[in-house]
Amino acid sequence: MAGDLVEQLDRGDQRALPRLLTLVENDDPRGLAALEQLYPRTGRAHVVGITGPPGSGKSTLVAALVAGLRKRSERVAVLAIDPSSPVSGGAVLGDRIRMMERHADPGVFVRSMAARGRLGGLAPTAARAVHLLDAAGYSTILVETVGTGQDGISVADLAHTVAVVQVPGLGDGVQSIKAGQLEIGDLLVVNKLDLPGAREVVRLLRLDVAAQHQPDGWDTPVVGVSATSGDGIEDVLEAIEAHHRHLKATAGWGDRTRRAAVAEILGGVRQELDRRFREVGSSDDLGTLVADVANRRSSPEMAIAALLDRLGGALGGGDPVGDQRRG
Amino acid sequence: MAGDLVEQLDRGDQRALPRLLTLVENDDPRGLAALEQLYPRTGRAHVVGITGPPGSGKSTLVAALVAGLRKRSERVAVLAIDPSSPVSGGAVLGDRIRMMERHADPGVFVRSMAARGRLGGLAPTAARAVHLLDAAGYSTILVETVGTGQDGISVADLAHTVAVVQVPGLGDGVQSIKAGQLEIGDLLVVNKLDLPGAREVVRLLRLDVAAQHQPDGWDTPVVGVSATSGDGIEDVLEAIEAHHRHLKATAGWGDRTRRAAVAEILGGVRQELDRRFREVGSSDDLGTLVADVANRRSSPEMAIAALLDRLGGALGGGDPVGDQRRG
Repeated sequence: MAGDLVEQLDRGDQRALPRLLTLVENDDPRGLAALEQLYPRTGRAHVVGITGPPGSGKSTLVAALVAGLRKRSERVAVLAIDPSSPVSGGAVLGDRIRMMERHADPGVFVRSMAARGRLGGLAPTAARAVHLLDAAGYSTILVETVGTGQDGISVADLAHTVAVVQVPGLGDGVQSIKAGQLEIGDLLVVNKLDLPGAREVVRLLRLDVAAQHQPDGWDTPVVGVSATSGDGIEDVLEAIEAHHRHLKATAGWGDRTRRAAVAEILGGVRQELDRRFREVGSSDDLGTLVADVANRRSSPEMAIAALLDRLGGALGGGDPVGDQRRG
Repeated sequence: MAGDLVEQLDRGDQRALPRLLTLVENDDPRGLAALEQLYPRTGRAHVVGITGPPGSGKSTLVAALVAGLRKRSERVAVLAIDPSSPVSGGAVLGDRIRMMERHADPGVFVRSMAARGRLGGLAPTAARAVHLLDAAGYSTILVETVGTGQDGISVADLAHTVAVVQVPGLGDGVQSIKAGQLEIGDLLVVNKLDLPGAREVVRLLRLDVAAQHQPDGWDTPVVGVSATSGDGIEDVLEAIEAHHRHLKATAGWGDRTRRAAVAEILGGVRQELDRRFREVGSSDDLGTLVADVANRRSSPEMAIAALLDRLGGALGGGDPVGDQRRG
């Protein structure tokens, strides 16, 4: 069945996509099998993260960006991770996009997903969904999400370009961008520019950005917009495209792609380790290891070293036991 | 030098303890070597977590508990993880304990530690500090900490008994105990019983607890106290001792000890995995694995499977490759 869906997708029949996404979302082996087939043809899309606090107007901004990208003949997919509320978030986005879909625009695809991990980070499912959209031929994938979360994969791990959205009045001016949020932004968007204080936020953010060291030679733009009126949307699109060109012209594109691979592999290994430790039995090797530590026959450090030693060869990094074994 | 400190500790010279704790806190190899020597004699202390939001009066409560335990001739160590503010938290505790120390009571030891991980969970250092205090012969170890944190080891992983402290008025009554906090409490302490609404919080919490299923046959007590006046402190001590007896009389003690071992091993492995992935070079095995995924020569799932396969034997759980290798 998964093979059929892949064939269907190959024929350009986009109806296969929602079904594949559902399979992947449910950790269905058929979804993973399809992904395995499709993965080699991914890596072409420009993945753009749109992140910001609830109430910053991300969904309206995303809808405006979709319209602008369509004018540029880009095929656009939107992945909205855990949209805040059906009224303020999902529905606005849904309404706008449904409007476009009603005109039967096959160049737009929208999907909402509850792909958050236990502690608010993105589940591995989010990365897999991006791969499916990429394989389906969308040239720009907008990933909309609230904040970076506390564990798992961050949107900065998934995206080539991250736009951090901010509005005046949510807390104390610039301070309302949470620590760490500013740093992940390749561009900063101040939305609701018609609100009092918005231009002051733009000015302060620009000072902030100018004071930062930009190791990769990219000057983070700060763009003021009004997503509802459309003012400034062109500037955001131009900033996104400029960052795309910058990544392609430098080592940036490769670095980001590698970073995404690291995050996905590490996330998967961590998830599986947690699962296996939760299920540890008393009879298996891992159970014996744990019992030895609990009974003080072995120290935690010795148990950790024993486990890591098994990984030694793959992890490299000067593990002498692993080196001898290979040598 | 670490060997000297261990000998000093063996002679009952407690001056070695702060130095060992500093070595462990700094991830100094000498600290880890000492811990390796001392670990076999740990596992005797009753480790009690005292957790609750800032402003719940944890430090005052801890000081009162220390006094009560001393009357019972217990040797008590206090480990205050990242005490909130020097005024409201650390200093109150510090003042009270220093008072006791001024009377040269060798049966009390107090240590503050910044043993929090990046995302607020407890760093592996916290578990190691508990082992040192245990090896030094303290019969009760109180671990004071704000909340459970978002990653790393939770106080529930370290402690045999967890007391969750709550006060009326911090938010919306019972709701102000964060999701997940209530569940980790082996006893619930409502502090500042003289405040309006406090007895109502006790009543509501008792209803809540009564509705919960208690799989291990322990009825979670809800105790109202006024830590400043000392009212109810005896009830808290009795609840802590009753839980200690309950654990010892059932499989509970072994289960908690095993849970602590799992958390410490898993925490150590995760920390090391994160470190090695951050340092991944382009020339080593891990670098090749990442590059293959980034270049779409291999899928993330294949890379994850390859890494876990190396761990297969140790992790058990029906890994066919590992089984064949062992067979």
